Amino acid sequence: MTRARSAERRAEILRATLEVIAERGYRGATLGAVAERVGLTQQGLLHHFPTKEALLVAVLEERDQWDALPSDSWRLDLVASLVDYNAMRPGIVQTFSALLGESVTDDHPARDFFTRRYVTVRANMASVLRGAYGERLPGGLTPERAAVLMVAAMDGLQYQWLLDPDSVDMAESFREFLTLIEGRPGTTDEAADTD
Amino acid sequence: MTRARSAERRAEILRATLEVIAERGYRGATLGAVAERVGLTQQGLLHHFPTKEALLVAVLEERDQWDALPSDSWRLDLVASLVDYNAMRPGIVQTFSALLGESVTDDHPARDFFTRRYVTVRANMASVLRGAYGERLPGGLTPERAAVLMVAAMDGLQYQWLLDPDSVDMAESFREFLTLIEGRPGTTDEAADTD
Repeated sequence: MTRARSAERRAEILRATLEVIAERGYRGATLGAVAERVGLTQQGLLHHFPTKEALLVAVLEERDQWDALPSDSWRLDLVASLVDYNAMRPGIVQTFSALLGESVTDDHPARDFFTRRYVTVRANMASVLRGAYGERLPGGLTPERAAVLMVAAMDGLQYQWLLDPDSVDMAESFREFLTLIEGRPGTTDEAADTD
Repeated sequence: MTRARSAERRAEILRATLEVIAERGYRGATLGAVAERVGLTQQGLLHHFPTKEALLVAVLEERDQWDALPSDSWRLDLVASLVDYNAMRPGIVQTFSALLGESVTDDHPARDFFTRRYVTVRANMASVLRGAYGERLPGGLTPERAAVLMVAAMDGLQYQWLLDPDSVDMAESFREFLTLIEGRPGTTDEAADTD
């Protein structure tokens, strides 16, 4: 197989995996189900991705590339829009959250991916915050300190939302978090009703 | 076995599991390792806890009982102290975080535990916040809305800290989060250096 053909096949497998994840969630995204979708034997699929974890990490890396914007165009409302968008794709959020959970155990194959990813994501978020507010946010934190909390809030909200979507509005809660780091109380609808 | 004897044995198993978790983490806390620690066969252990998940959920429930304070004595600085305390017990935090990750997948045995737990924890946190600030926090949110974010920040920080403890100071970041919901910028040491 030529290198171009192999890259094409790889991209096809990742698209198929994303479809299977959307339809059947993290548990349903087995190597067998993905192999069937792309018309490969499981052995053939293993040639491209040696384990389920390797396949799912590749899907998450691919998603990060699609989600990424040129660093100079990052705006805080785009981050909120990304959370809105995630609320419409529970399968991939479930996959991210399940794999993140596994990754904190010793020697997990996805541990390195998530560790590196957080370094990058925190730096990107700090850059967005610096672009919007300079060296000190209205809420009092530096962009770097606020970035840690912004990423934590996004991830933490995902778990509460996945477990109980009727009780937790992930996108609305994230916008409320933004009002906190922006230091502008009373700007959400809910806050407006008594102040 | 009498009921009292069985409850005693159960408590002994939970203590042993906590020790194994502290020493070997989530992955090392196998049914075999726990059985050996308490001098039971694996079959004997299965009599008390039918699966590893059931055993670990029982450990987390037990931890919640120890961590809980009478609802009228909850104060916000005690919540921050709980995060300080968690920073000294990575094994149980790893177990919580790994099991939470698994629980968002379909039909996972721990899903019900975490869903119910979040309902309770959000209500407890809202009650703490209401006790401290009344119906509207200085940062503008209601106690219920802030509670969602407070729990999300705690959980999200745990993942970043478990993956990269040298880069993320979970306890310090959580105190910074509290300054945001309290709407008192510039009260952390770091914020004080330029304002």
